[in-house]
Amino acid sequence: MVQPETQSDLQPDFNKGNGLLPVITQEYGTNEVLMLAYMNKESFEETLKSGKATYFSRSREKLWKKGETSGNMQSIKEIRIDCDNDTILIKVEQAGGAACHLGYKSCFFRKTDNNGLLKIVEKRIFDPKEVYK
Amino acid sequence: MVQPETQSDLQPDFNKGNGLLPVITQEYGTNEVLMLAYMNKESFEETLKSGKATYFSRSREKLWKKGETSGNMQSIKEIRIDCDNDTILIKVEQAGGAACHLGYKSCFFRKTDNNGLLKIVEKRIFDPKEVYK
Repeated sequence: MVQPETQSDLQPDFNKGNGLLPVITQEYGTNEVLMLAYMNKESFEETLKSGKATYFSRSREKLWKKGETSGNMQSIKEIRIDCDNDTILIKVEQAGGAACHLGYKSCFFRKTDNNGLLKIVEKRIFDPKEVYK
Repeated sequence: MVQPETQSDLQPDFNKGNGLLPVITQEYGTNEVLMLAYMNKESFEETLKSGKATYFSRSREKLWKKGETSGNMQSIKEIRIDCDNDTILIKVEQAGGAACHLGYKSCFFRKTDNNGLLKIVEKRIFDPKEVYK
């Protein structure tokens, strides 16, 4: 994994988002977008150090190591940053095959059909009731 | 394209982001992430109506039809929304082959190497000086 002490060039501008930047999480290999969450400086550094995606939960207002409850951790394979240094993109290996707390691989499991109505287009991987007790 | 009047089920919760929600833009077909930008309700409705990605520019504080200057418009092929209804994902066909104002296909044209240093990993498609005069 990347080492934080060598991150001389990777400097997300956390000031731009009042301390929080959006993070796009893609599945390594397929490039499927699994989720979008937020990181502050502390969670970003914890992600670099641990090699596991660690976000900042806006609702709980604290660090959130993805998978700490479900066991479905995300191992970092690649880190990118956008041209403005205010969006982070990570590519991960998703343990358990599902990132969404509703049991789907991706949080984006619904898409609009030709009539503009939302349809579920993925199969559920796990039952949330069994995972979050 | 989807028609706004039939969007009974697609209801992004713009209140969650103080009126602005993040939008992940992927290239249709490859799933490469091209950029992340923001939409308010008006730009979202304009996107649905026109079939072309229309964002809200936070710096200019106004609607921003992507490609209005460069000509590199984004034609909407698919719209998804996440489980919390607070992140939008669109898949587009990118005119001109480049989404980034710096001339790269993707705004995420830099990634960290094994030493944690950022490296440019894409080729420039156009020269910004020629496009933005």
